[in-house]
Amino acid sequence: LETLFEELKSASEMVGALISNDSFPCGVEPACLREAVRAYPARGGKRLRPALLMWSCGALGGDVTKVLRIAAAVEIYHNWTLVHDDIIDGDSLRRGLPTTHKALEAHAASELKLDAASASAYGRDFAILAGDVQQAWSLDLMLRSVDDGVPGWLVNSLARRICSAVNRELISGEALDVEFPFRAQTPSKDEVVKMLCGKTGAILKFCVQAGGAVALESCAFDASPLRELGEFAMKLGIAFQLIDDHLGVFGEPSEFGKPICSDLREGKPTILVIEAMERLDAEGRERLKSLLRLKSYGDAEISSARELFRSSGAERANLDLAAKYAEESKSALLTLPDGRFKTLLSELSAYILGRNV
Amino acid sequence: LETLFEELKSASEMVGALISNDSFPCGVEPACLREAVRAYPARGGKRLRPALLMWSCGALGGDVTKVLRIAAAVEIYHNWTLVHDDIIDGDSLRRGLPTTHKALEAHAASELKLDAASASAYGRDFAILAGDVQQAWSLDLMLRSVDDGVPGWLVNSLARRICSAVNRELISGEALDVEFPFRAQTPSKDEVVKMLCGKTGAILKFCVQAGGAVALESCAFDASPLRELGEFAMKLGIAFQLIDDHLGVFGEPSEFGKPICSDLREGKPTILVIEAMERLDAEGRERLKSLLRLKSYGDAEISSARELFRSSGAERANLDLAAKYAEESKSALLTLPDGRFKTLLSELSAYILGRNV
Repeated sequence: LETLFEELKSASEMVGALISNDSFPCGVEPACLREAVRAYPARGGKRLRPALLMWSCGALGGDVTKVLRIAAAVEIYHNWTLVHDDIIDGDSLRRGLPTTHKALEAHAASELKLDAASASAYGRDFAILAGDVQQAWSLDLMLRSVDDGVPGWLVNSLARRICSAVNRELISGEALDVEFPFRAQTPSKDEVVKMLCGKTGAILKFCVQAGGAVALESCAFDASPLRELGEFAMKLGIAFQLIDDHLGVFGEPSEFGKPICSDLREGKPTILVIEAMERLDAEGRERLKSLLRLKSYGDAEISSARELFRSSGAERANLDLAAKYAEESKSALLTLPDGRFKTLLSELSAYILGRNV
Repeated sequence: LETLFEELKSASEMVGALISNDSFPCGVEPACLREAVRAYPARGGKRLRPALLMWSCGALGGDVTKVLRIAAAVEIYHNWTLVHDDIIDGDSLRRGLPTTHKALEAHAASELKLDAASASAYGRDFAILAGDVQQAWSLDLMLRSVDDGVPGWLVNSLARRICSAVNRELISGEALDVEFPFRAQTPSKDEVVKMLCGKTGAILKFCVQAGGAVALESCAFDASPLRELGEFAMKLGIAFQLIDDHLGVFGEPSEFGKPICSDLREGKPTILVIEAMERLDAEGRERLKSLLRLKSYGDAEISSARELFRSSGAERANLDLAAKYAEESKSALLTLPDGRFKTLLSELSAYILGRNV
């Protein structure tokens, strides 16, 4: 996987440089909002989405430099959804640093001397606005790709696609993710997978299809090879999210960048939790239920949760499902022309399955 | 003003029909989020922005039906900012009905049986997402105007303009509006007017310039006549907001559609408040300060506030400033060709100055 990591790093650096040098945030006032708009996109992370977009363009014979701006746009698009998700999920950490609303809350407390309640409201309010600006920044960048030689009609079509299908599916997925814990009846595994398709899959599918569309100068998203690319990304997204759920319980707190057990804190019915509930006896189910929605998770609670998921076989079942989707995602690539970029896409499945951060 | 009202109503109905028939929200899940996405755009209100856009197009000789979709797009754009503003301002009423987050909170309490705190969080979270979808819906509609015969390069340029300058200025204005009450030093009147230019003026300016740009098939926003149209709208926006601040204190609760004194509740340094603080003696200033940031405003508090604003001359000063901007906005139209649409634009200034809802 050496090459994969190097290529991921290289794609991340190209996109990171473009984002850091982009003047869009300069006009934002006040300064703390401007910094908040820049923060996540500049913070980096794996930047899988831009890499997927660029490699898909390359895999279909396109000029990768032509889609750099669109790749930066989807990275920023992903980041605005994270800013709003982090408010909704009440998360404090993102990539090992304070989430946007938490950073703004700290700013309000230290610089504006607000009391705790006002600072918290200020952090939330400004984080809502920061995400709103980022959604627009992303679209602006995408629309500017006409300057990179992408035909105007194709730019219009891609921008419409991200504003319609992608936005609707992604936000609906997020909304269902918020709603599931409150439903009287636990959702089925199929419903959870459908939610993941929206929340994680929709934008990955957009990435690969946008890259491919620029390479081919075609918008035939439902025909080969864009259809197969889309299927690859959707399956990859589900595998990615299942592994994310796994790491959310079994990951190393210092490496994962997010608090361990936050899904349990929010009472989210992940595949991991549903599998465990199906497999545990009455006593085990009660023990697991008693570990949901706690205020905080210390070593004891984390160990208990891990033990329940492991002994019930739910951990294994979740990882097996992730492996199945990763395998299917690789198979969807078979009809694509062989080459360096196809290899990279294919290796991503293996990497995602084996990752520990 | 008979004709103005009829034309406003006619523009509102055309845009309302387009919005109601648009299939964009159909794909949004769950149903309560879909309803929230539709609610404000369907709720109507004055729909000044679409009218401004259509009349500006007409005033420069353009085909008004060509910009209907762009007019609907700015109306939805305005509405997503209201959905997020209402969360931020903690407002309960919008156009006489529950705000989006309040309606969703009620849904969560009655349908999902959530307790008060969870229902409130649910309402807020889903309202964030509803605004996010609406921002995308607005852009999608605008991008679809290529189907109405607007040239692709012009659609791209307008979409970029609303995603860059307009979004940045509008959100920065909103952020400053949130931040001002927390500043150690009260902002100056110039700073408040600058904030209003962003919060209210930027999108009005976009409306008239977009309408004019389609009529002329030109993007020369800084040259005559788009420059003058922009100045007209910016001045009109400031006048509009100053009257809004006035009605926020002196309006009829049953007609205004928003709670009276909500600016005082949030401690906002409106021009009205700054003028009063400058004009009152020490005792009067203390009385006014004691009327800021209360939990609720009954008849006694509303009467006291009105008396202070009136006796100090602040009410008059605020209305005079609004009249000055309304007059300047009309003057900016002088160089435009005479005709029915120019008359309508010009009458809008008078209407806005005299409105009581």
